[in-house]
Amino acid sequence: MTTAPDLPACFRFVLVRTSHPGNIGSAARAMRTMGFARMELVAPHKFPDREASALAAGADDVLEQAGVHGELVEALAGSSLAFGLSARRRGVNLPELTPREAAAQALAAAQRGEQVALVFGNERTGLENEELARCHAMVRIPSVEDFSSLNLSQAVQVMAYELRVALLGEHLPAPPPVHDEPPADAAQMERFFEHLAQMLDDIDFHKGRAPTTIMLRLRKLFQRVQMDERELRMLHGIFADAQRMARLAGDKK
Amino acid sequence: MTTAPDLPACFRFVLVRTSHPGNIGSAARAMRTMGFARMELVAPHKFPDREASALAAGADDVLEQAGVHGELVEALAGSSLAFGLSARRRGVNLPELTPREAAAQALAAAQRGEQVALVFGNERTGLENEELARCHAMVRIPSVEDFSSLNLSQAVQVMAYELRVALLGEHLPAPPPVHDEPPADAAQMERFFEHLAQMLDDIDFHKGRAPTTIMLRLRKLFQRVQMDERELRMLHGIFADAQRMARLAGDKK
Repeated sequence: MTTAPDLPACFRFVLVRTSHPGNIGSAARAMRTMGFARMELVAPHKFPDREASALAAGADDVLEQAGVHGELVEALAGSSLAFGLSARRRGVNLPELTPREAAAQALAAAQRGEQVALVFGNERTGLENEELARCHAMVRIPSVEDFSSLNLSQAVQVMAYELRVALLGEHLPAPPPVHDEPPADAAQMERFFEHLAQMLDDIDFHKGRAPTTIMLRLRKLFQRVQMDERELRMLHGIFADAQRMARLAGDKK
Repeated sequence: MTTAPDLPACFRFVLVRTSHPGNIGSAARAMRTMGFARMELVAPHKFPDREASALAAGADDVLEQAGVHGELVEALAGSSLAFGLSARRRGVNLPELTPREAAAQALAAAQRGEQVALVFGNERTGLENEELARCHAMVRIPSVEDFSSLNLSQAVQVMAYELRVALLGEHLPAPPPVHDEPPADAAQMERFFEHLAQMLDDIDFHKGRAPTTIMLRLRKLFQRVQMDERELRMLHGIFADAQRMARLAGDKK
């Protein structure tokens, strides 16, 4: 009997020659929010480091378990698919994917039981040619031409987010109901519109204007909003008070 | 002849009560990489600030042009659609969208010429209830349950990325507008709520009940429905007539 693979565990985030330890911490947090825990560091400038821990903001487990390697090839051990994040457009000679396309391919590989690496270069210089040459495809986050460089941890966040969305796939939990209270049903809405119409008569709103046009517009407005029972009770209460004022005004004419 | 609207200019990123100036800088950079330049700050703890400029990493133009406001409503001036980013799941009484769904809706609104706001709360406390009540929908980045809090600038990056992907999209024709009339903007909605509150006082609706709770519920109800100007005029007319009755009732006591 085979059990379903632990899909998030099939992904590793590989940070190559990272200059700023803070970015390692921020990247750990970014990964962790999206459910990923495996980080591999290649020749980090400074690690472990207090700033990395501070910016991990609780994702200390990711940092504690992070592998530290001398060479990219060690960090890729056991993986069969590697995506290199890069802002370069030429001379790479690799298929160029969007983060979304890469996430779909990465998920498909993980579902086949493969290990997948997402590889991020140095903050300033990105991935070197020889590093990209160890990747199967290049992923380009679609930044604008004149300001193309994302912060390292931001690039990690975008890629982790796309992987998370792919993993959630069609199995997204149903969104919670908009309301804590039961939604108003058709009969309740009908009584609501009757009360609304009566109140408009009582406060002398129409003054010769066609009530049907107005009521149609009000129907569209209040149907569109999909009220719950509490909201309905609140509006009934307001109408009742407006009617009470109209009665008082009438009684004393 | 009409020219195509400058779509990225239709979006603004609103940062509310941001504690750390560094996050403002990082958010500016995140926006800029995705082609967005308009930032509005509501009661920032510290701004301008050297750390904000340092982390903007060249996106100084975004910081220099950022508006600074005392209240969220000012930052929303002229916008007709506001999405509140939040990790909360209950008691919000707003439709919950994924970033991708929100990006699609935001793009459709921009294609109709509307201004759209993406609203981000304080780092620790997120958006308050009264702030969410000024939004038309809530956006939840699909983080994992046990580590759900993204860094502020990371949340900005994810939302800006999804908007950028939507903008690059297929240049789909804009879906038909919900309304034939212009949508109500933030200032018009504010006047509407003031009128509503005054009317409730006049018809003696509260009778000792807490007006703030009621007004918050009414705000959420009427924000959710995204009214157009004609609908707004119609409701103003109803309120005015209810007030007239209250005056008559009062005069004749």
